[in-house]
Amino acid sequence: MPNWLLPEYIEDVLPNDAAHIESMRRRVMDLLHVHGYQFVIPPLLEYVESLLSGSGSDMNLRMFKVVDQLSGRMMGLRADMTPQVARIDAHLLNQSGVTRLCYASSVVHALPCEIARTRELFQVGAELYGHVGIESDIEIQRLLLACLYVSGVPAIHLDFGHVNIFRSLIQDADISPELERELYSALQAKDTAVLRELVRNGLNKHLNKVTGEALLLLPELYGDEAVLAQARRYLPNFTEISVALDQLDTVADTLRSEVFNLTFDLSDLRGYHYHTGIVFAAYTHGCPNAIALGGRYDEIGKVFGRARPATGFSFDLKQVAGLIHGNDHPKAVLAPWCPGDDALNEIIAKLRADGTVVVVVLPGENGQEGIRCDRKLIHRNGRWEITENFLIEEPGR
Amino acid sequence: MPNWLLPEYIEDVLPNDAAHIESMRRRVMDLLHVHGYQFVIPPLLEYVESLLSGSGSDMNLRMFKVVDQLSGRMMGLRADMTPQVARIDAHLLNQSGVTRLCYASSVVHALPCEIARTRELFQVGAELYGHVGIESDIEIQRLLLACLYVSGVPAIHLDFGHVNIFRSLIQDADISPELERELYSALQAKDTAVLRELVRNGLNKHLNKVTGEALLLLPELYGDEAVLAQARRYLPNFTEISVALDQLDTVADTLRSEVFNLTFDLSDLRGYHYHTGIVFAAYTHGCPNAIALGGRYDEIGKVFGRARPATGFSFDLKQVAGLIHGNDHPKAVLAPWCPGDDALNEIIAKLRADGTVVVVVLPGENGQEGIRCDRKLIHRNGRWEITENFLIEEPGR
Repeated sequence: MPNWLLPEYIEDVLPNDAAHIESMRRRVMDLLHVHGYQFVIPPLLEYVESLLSGSGSDMNLRMFKVVDQLSGRMMGLRADMTPQVARIDAHLLNQSGVTRLCYASSVVHALPCEIARTRELFQVGAELYGHVGIESDIEIQRLLLACLYVSGVPAIHLDFGHVNIFRSLIQDADISPELERELYSALQAKDTAVLRELVRNGLNKHLNKVTGEALLLLPELYGDEAVLAQARRYLPNFTEISVALDQLDTVADTLRSEVFNLTFDLSDLRGYHYHTGIVFAAYTHGCPNAIALGGRYDEIGKVFGRARPATGFSFDLKQVAGLIHGNDHPKAVLAPWCPGDDALNEIIAKLRADGTVVVVVLPGENGQEGIRCDRKLIHRNGRWEITENFLIEEPGR
Repeated sequence: MPNWLLPEYIEDVLPNDAAHIESMRRRVMDLLHVHGYQFVIPPLLEYVESLLSGSGSDMNLRMFKVVDQLSGRMMGLRADMTPQVARIDAHLLNQSGVTRLCYASSVVHALPCEIARTRELFQVGAELYGHVGIESDIEIQRLLLACLYVSGVPAIHLDFGHVNIFRSLIQDADISPELERELYSALQAKDTAVLRELVRNGLNKHLNKVTGEALLLLPELYGDEAVLAQARRYLPNFTEISVALDQLDTVADTLRSEVFNLTFDLSDLRGYHYHTGIVFAAYTHGCPNAIALGGRYDEIGKVFGRARPATGFSFDLKQVAGLIHGNDHPKAVLAPWCPGDDALNEIIAKLRADGTVVVVVLPGENGQEGIRCDRKLIHRNGRWEITENFLIEEPGR
């Protein structure tokens, strides 16, 4: 097999796409910066136990692992940076108040997940620690919207869920962990046939009728804000459910005018194992999968010795960049090879200082390959000037 | 063992250092961009055979390996991006003329090498393909100097070698591969005792006296430009040696005025297995190890089906950033929580658009933790204004 072939779902990013990603990366990071989010760079590898903290077993299967030759322990190549950033907040920064952190680096999945169809993602995200109120959820949701807008994503659709609705039903009904797992899977897969079967079996044992009916109703509670009114009417009157619905109402009132579309899905249990409040996903035209995910996960710092309220979002910048038509093809000025010409060198230095790309043709180089030059520095009437609209003839013309 | 402990020689980069590295990364990448170097992003992992192409067995030992679950083949976590970028030039871009590429991403070493004392480096580099002349070497050396200057590195010292001097001695003398390896090791280690022993044994077999004396002289050919005159006088009059010394002379003449110090080391055989011409290393005060390495390696594309002339450099941005005192502590404006106040929201948006960090205090947040704010938005005489020189009292004062 040729040496230049890459493994499946592993790609090079070539100049045009790389420039596009870099430009988007800077716009997003600048935006996070002016909102007070501090950049951190967690390591690519660390002990498996740290990387798995707070996340489910699916993360364990998604992670490449290597033996650390210095300790003999197992290290994982990070598949998600959220646990790492939570570790930094919980242990390293150790601030008692609100901490705002952001990150932008590669993560690797051992197997491609359906959403991304690639094994190397460029994960960008922001996390807000130390605040329990809905205001921090809204700050994070607004920040995600701003990141997507500044990236050029059109017509953003936000879809909201709240894991406490399902959780409070489970807790009230004193359902066994096995049944909880089965109900969770059926709801996640929106498999109503299995769900009906599970509820029917459950009703013969522990499950009371009110909870059973509520569970059967959840997959139908999907759509616009009318869903919230429906939920208030038909779901049991538990405090946790009222609080959850109030929070979703607040989010809807606040963000309604800021997004193209806003929907709710009360059976969305993504990240149920670590989320503890509102969860959300962003969509746009031309992409069936979510382009960003986020939510509240108040318990994640516990394994690092300090449980902290937390809410955040992340997205794959490579995926988002792939949706947007980039306009980052560099235009360049071609300069001749005259190393001793001080006037020319001064002009080249000035152009470059102003951000113009200047390629100096090396002796023997024909100046027709590589980067595309649309202007040329030439010597005319005793001085150097740039000829505009210079186009290199393409071979064969 | 606590979950927050990191493996040895693996570090988090916390906000102040991360801001410093990001600012340096942007300055260096902007500089490479305006010089016509196009950014590429090779993958973190690929098949081991591709990553090892053109490099020695030391790279094999430095690399973490995982089994690709999709192909059953071995993949490596890159320990160096140079072979990847050569693969992109040789195969993917496939341009016949000059190609200029640059890169800036993490590489990982299974074991810490002495130089860096960390296992995760942030490798930044530039490569110029398709040009055989000394002019491209000088372009690359100047570009490295510019990168280090823009990073704030003071008093740069460049040290030059040329692998063809040793190579032509070996070829002329028809030395066995075993003896070549031993001589190479002795020269790299500057172990003159072993070197003398090897030459003495060699003289009894193949080795002629002229080559033997030249090999014994190499470790002494270290120092300023006088070394080149000495080499011309005492080394055998081979064409390859003359060409090499001419090239070193040209480099010295060109760069003398542009660096703090310029030295030569004709026994420096770093990267002898893949380098094919001038090699160089950059040093600065306060750091005993090289902070950047580079040189010519004309054969590297061969394993990808297309041998191309090539010269380039790379350095660990984290190491260089560690040498420079950063001044990237963000100053921020603290704004109160008044979500319905349009005038305030407008001011906040304007400040942020101008690049000012504005942190909005959330209800219940005391605004004293996390990012350091030195100014405050307050409502006075019917309008919002920024109080200057606002300093948050530190606890305990």
